[in-house]
Amino acid sequence: MYSTMQDVPLTVSRILRHGSTVHGGSAVTTWTESGPERRSFAQIGTRAAQLAHALRDELGVAGDQRVATLMWNNSEHLEAYLAIPSMGAVLHTLNLRLPADQLCWIVNHAADRVVVVDGSLLPLLAPLLPRLESVEHVVVSGPGDTGLLKDCRARVHDYEQLLAGRPTGFDWPDIDEREAAALCYTSGTTGDPKGVTYSHRSVYLHSMQVLSAESFGLSSADSVLPVVPMFHVNSWGIPHAAFMAGTSMLMPDRFLQPAPLVEMIETERPTVAAAVPTIWQGVLAELDAGGRDTESLHTVVIGGSACPPAMMKAFDAHGIRVVHAWGMTETSPLGSLAHPPGGLTEEEEWPYRISQGRFPASVEARLAGPSGEIMPWDGESTGELEVRGPWIAGAYYGGADGSLLRPEDKFSEDGWLRTGDVGRITPDGYLTLTDRAKDVIKSGGEWISSVELENHLMAHPDVAEAAVVAVPDDKWGERPLATVVLKDGKGADYEELRAFLAERVARWQVPERWSVIEAVPKTSVGKFDKKVLRRQYAEGALDVSEL
Amino acid sequence: MYSTMQDVPLTVSRILRHGSTVHGGSAVTTWTESGPERRSFAQIGTRAAQLAHALRDELGVAGDQRVATLMWNNSEHLEAYLAIPSMGAVLHTLNLRLPADQLCWIVNHAADRVVVVDGSLLPLLAPLLPRLESVEHVVVSGPGDTGLLKDCRARVHDYEQLLAGRPTGFDWPDIDEREAAALCYTSGTTGDPKGVTYSHRSVYLHSMQVLSAESFGLSSADSVLPVVPMFHVNSWGIPHAAFMAGTSMLMPDRFLQPAPLVEMIETERPTVAAAVPTIWQGVLAELDAGGRDTESLHTVVIGGSACPPAMMKAFDAHGIRVVHAWGMTETSPLGSLAHPPGGLTEEEEWPYRISQGRFPASVEARLAGPSGEIMPWDGESTGELEVRGPWIAGAYYGGADGSLLRPEDKFSEDGWLRTGDVGRITPDGYLTLTDRAKDVIKSGGEWISSVELENHLMAHPDVAEAAVVAVPDDKWGERPLATVVLKDGKGADYEELRAFLAERVARWQVPERWSVIEAVPKTSVGKFDKKVLRRQYAEGALDVSEL
Repeated sequence: MYSTMQDVPLTVSRILRHGSTVHGGSAVTTWTESGPERRSFAQIGTRAAQLAHALRDELGVAGDQRVATLMWNNSEHLEAYLAIPSMGAVLHTLNLRLPADQLCWIVNHAADRVVVVDGSLLPLLAPLLPRLESVEHVVVSGPGDTGLLKDCRARVHDYEQLLAGRPTGFDWPDIDEREAAALCYTSGTTGDPKGVTYSHRSVYLHSMQVLSAESFGLSSADSVLPVVPMFHVNSWGIPHAAFMAGTSMLMPDRFLQPAPLVEMIETERPTVAAAVPTIWQGVLAELDAGGRDTESLHTVVIGGSACPPAMMKAFDAHGIRVVHAWGMTETSPLGSLAHPPGGLTEEEEWPYRISQGRFPASVEARLAGPSGEIMPWDGESTGELEVRGPWIAGAYYGGADGSLLRPEDKFSEDGWLRTGDVGRITPDGYLTLTDRAKDVIKSGGEWISSVELENHLMAHPDVAEAAVVAVPDDKWGERPLATVVLKDGKGADYEELRAFLAERVARWQVPERWSVIEAVPKTSVGKFDKKVLRRQYAEGALDVSEL
Repeated sequence: MYSTMQDVPLTVSRILRHGSTVHGGSAVTTWTESGPERRSFAQIGTRAAQLAHALRDELGVAGDQRVATLMWNNSEHLEAYLAIPSMGAVLHTLNLRLPADQLCWIVNHAADRVVVVDGSLLPLLAPLLPRLESVEHVVVSGPGDTGLLKDCRARVHDYEQLLAGRPTGFDWPDIDEREAAALCYTSGTTGDPKGVTYSHRSVYLHSMQVLSAESFGLSSADSVLPVVPMFHVNSWGIPHAAFMAGTSMLMPDRFLQPAPLVEMIETERPTVAAAVPTIWQGVLAELDAGGRDTESLHTVVIGGSACPPAMMKAFDAHGIRVVHAWGMTETSPLGSLAHPPGGLTEEEEWPYRISQGRFPASVEARLAGPSGEIMPWDGESTGELEVRGPWIAGAYYGGADGSLLRPEDKFSEDGWLRTGDVGRITPDGYLTLTDRAKDVIKSGGEWISSVELENHLMAHPDVAEAAVVAVPDDKWGERPLATVVLKDGKGADYEELRAFLAERVARWQVPERWSVIEAVPKTSVGKFDKKVLRRQYAEGALDVSEL
C-alpha cells in the first residue's frame, strides 16, 4: 500500500528556494583582482531568478535545452548552477583544461544553445566559436576582451546587463526528479568523451550525503573553500550542498596559486576546503615557510587522486586534517570517504585514513575478480570495484536524441557501474584502491599491482618518479615494465632497485624490464598517462634494459 | 530528458544491508536487569533475516500486512524495525502509554496480524487480546509471564525459538520506495487516533537528514542513546539513521528512571542522547547531586515539548549541550532543529537556542494568518505553521482498504500539512512556536498567545504552574481565563498577578478571569490538557473570579 507521505520531488529549485530564504544571510565570497566580493544567498537567489528570466524571455531557452558554462568558481557560476536546472534546462559545465578539439566535440555533442563564459576565459573560447555549431548565444560575465568576439556568429550578451531590471522572483516549474539537471563529460583517455547527466534527484541526495557528519559534515556554522573546480564533477557537490545547508562559500575564481590561496584562507577564514593533491602540495610549501595563520581551517577533503601519506602528515602538523575521498564523474562523485572508526589512537587511525574510506549507505559496492566472480571483503582479495546507487551513472548520454549508451566494459549486465578501479575492501568496509583495471599486470593468471610497485620505487632515495606498465610477454602473458625518473645527479642502478623491491613485494612481481625516462607523461588533469608509455614501448621509443 | 543515473529505490532494506556489512562491527547495547547486552550490527542483520524468514515461512506474513510491536527500545525491537519493512510488510509501533481502548481501536484499525511484544509488557497486552480481532500471532521477546496468555486465541511464539536455525540471509524483495514501511498513530486528544504511514522513501530521506551536521550529526564514531521510545515517531528516526551511519546504539529498554539512565551513560559512554524534557529533568537532578561522570555525552536533543531555558542552562553547566528540536508524528518527526548560526557569542546564541530552530531543506514552511493569508517572516507576525516535504504527511491512513483521509483542518487544499502550531519565523528562518492553534485566544480580531501568558505567570515567585485557555466573551468573542497552581503556603493575589503581567504584555491581553486550581490536568504524554479546563469552565466546575 502507498504511504500517506506527501509526494514532493527532490529538485534543485527546492535547494535554491531553501538556501535563499532560510539561509538568505549566508554569503558567497569571490576572490578577485581587487579583493573579495561578497554576495548573500538571498542575493544569489534573486539573481538566479533574473538569470532564468533572461535565459527564457530574452534568449528563448526552453524545455531541457543545454546551457553551458565555461567559468571558474565564482558567484555567477553558482547563479547559473541554481538557475539553469531550476528552470528545467540542463547545466553543462565545460572543463576549461580540455584540449580544444575535445571541448568542441563536447559542446556539439551536447548541442549547447548558450555558453556563459567568464570574461577572463574569452581567449580560450573565442577561437573555438566558429566550430561550435549549436551555440546561438554567448553570455560574458566579468571583465574581458570582448573584441575577441567581434566576428562571432552567436549573439553576445553582457551577464550583468542581461540580468538588470528583470523580475527577482521566478515561478520555478514542477520537475520530475528523474529529469536531467546537469551534464558533465569525463575526460576519458581513450575514445570520445562520455557524458553523464545528473538528475535533480541525484543532485539532491548527493547534497544530503555531502552534509552528513560521516562525509564533509558542512553546516551553516561552516565556511567552505571549494578549490576543486565547479567544472570538475560539480566541485564534488559542494555548491549544491553548501547552498542547502547555508554554508558560506569562498570562491577562488582563477586564483589557484599557493600564494593567493593561503592569503584567502588567512583573511576569509574558511573551516573546510576541498582540492586535488597537486594544488595542496603548493599550499603546503607556503605553510611550511611559516608565519601564516590558517587556524580556521580544520579539514581538507582531498580526492581526484590518492593523497601521498607524507603530505597528510605534513598537514596534520599544521593542524589541518586531510580527509581522503574517492569518486569519479560517474559517481557524482562521492563514492567513499576515509573517516576512521571512533575510539582509535592516532597510530591506529592511520591505515584507515590513507585508505579510500568507507561507502555511504547510498553507494553499494562489490569487487569483481579476474573472471567476474564476486570477491570477499577480507582486506586481501582484489577485484574491480563495481558500484550501484541513486547517484551512480547507469549509462552515458547518447546525445540530443535522448538515447542512452551502456558499453559493457563500463556497465554490468545487472546495472552496476564498473569503475575501472582495482582494489580490496576490509571486513569493516574500508576500500583501498591499488590500480586502474587497465593498468593491472596480468602475469601468469595473477594480478600485479603497478601502483604498489610505483609506490615502493618512489620511496627509494634515488627515484623522483616511477611508472610501471604492462608489456606483452611470451611466457607470462604480461610482465611489468618499470620506468623511473631519477633524482638530479643519480645514476641508474637497476640491480639495487630490484633488490629494493624484492624486500617489499613477492619476488615474482619484481620487473625484469627497466627504463630511465626524463619525466612521466601526464594527462590533462595531471595523472600518469600510461597509454603513452605503453605506446612508446611498443614503438621501441624507450631505452629498455632487460635483466 | 531523463538522466543517466541508476534508478535505485530508497528502501529500508538498503539501510539494513549497508549497516550490517559496512558497519557490521558497530554495536547495539541493550540495558537489562543483569547489565548491558551487546549485539553487533552484523548480528542484528542476520537476526533480522531470521525474523523475516520466521514471519514469512512460519507465520505466513505476506504482502503489506501489518506486524505490530509493543516493545521498549532494545535490540529485538531494532531487528523488527529493519526486518518487517524490508520484507515488504508494514511495521506498526504501538504506544504502550495509550489507554487500553485506544490501543485496541488502533490494532483493529490497522488490522495487525502479528504482535511482537516484550515479555515485560505481557501484563499490558494480555487483557486486551480478546478484543484484538485481527491478531493471529503473538511473538514474545524476553522473559515474561506467558501464563497470562494461556486463554489466548492467537498462536503464541517465543521470539528466540522462532528465529533459531533459520537462514541468516534473506533475499529482500524490490520495493517501490513510495510503499508504506511503518505505521504510527497520533495520540490525538480529540476524536479517533490518526494513522500516518511512513514510506521507505521518507524513512530513508529522514535518516539522511538526521545524520547531517546541521541536525543530529551522528557518525560511526558516535554512540547514541535514544531515550525517546521507538514507539514514539520512530524514536525520532534515530534507529534507522544510526544503522545507516554505523552509529552504535545504547538502548535503555524499560530503565527510563534517572538512576539507571545516569548509570548507563557513565558505563557505556554515549556521545549523543535524545529525549523529552520530563525525562531529562530527572537526569539533571541526579547530575546536580554531583560525583557522576557523564563527560562522554556532549549533546542532548530535546523535543516533544519545549525545553525550559533554565534546564538548558543547567545542562550547559554539566558540559552537555541541549539542542532544541520540533516535530510531530505527521513530520517523521524532524521539522526543525535549533543550531545557532556560526560566529556568535554564548549570549548571542541564546535566542536561537531556545527557539524551535531552523527547517532543513526538505521541510518547506509557511505561516497562515487568522484568515488564511500567508504571513511574512519578520520575527513578529504570527500564523499557523504549515509544512510541506517528502517526509511530511499529506493524508491519514484510512484503513486496510487503502483509502487516504484528508480532513481539511489538517491539510490545506494545495497539500500542505496544517500543524496546528502557531508561531513566528525570523527573517533568517528560525521558528518560535507560541501556541497550539486551538489554544490561541481570538480576542477582538487579534490573537492572544496563551503560552506567552503562561510563561510569564510561571515566572512569578508564587506560581507553580499556570494554564491559560480561551473562554467565550460576549464583547470580544473570546477572552483568556488564567488558571494557576500556587506554591505551598501562597495565597491568591490576582491584582498582583495582573500587574505582573501588565508589565510584560500588552494591557488588553491581561486576563480578567482567574481561578486557582490544585493541578493542571495533563494528557497521557504529559502535556497540559486544556480541553479538560475548557469543559470544567463551561460546566461551572471552576471557582472563577472576574476582575
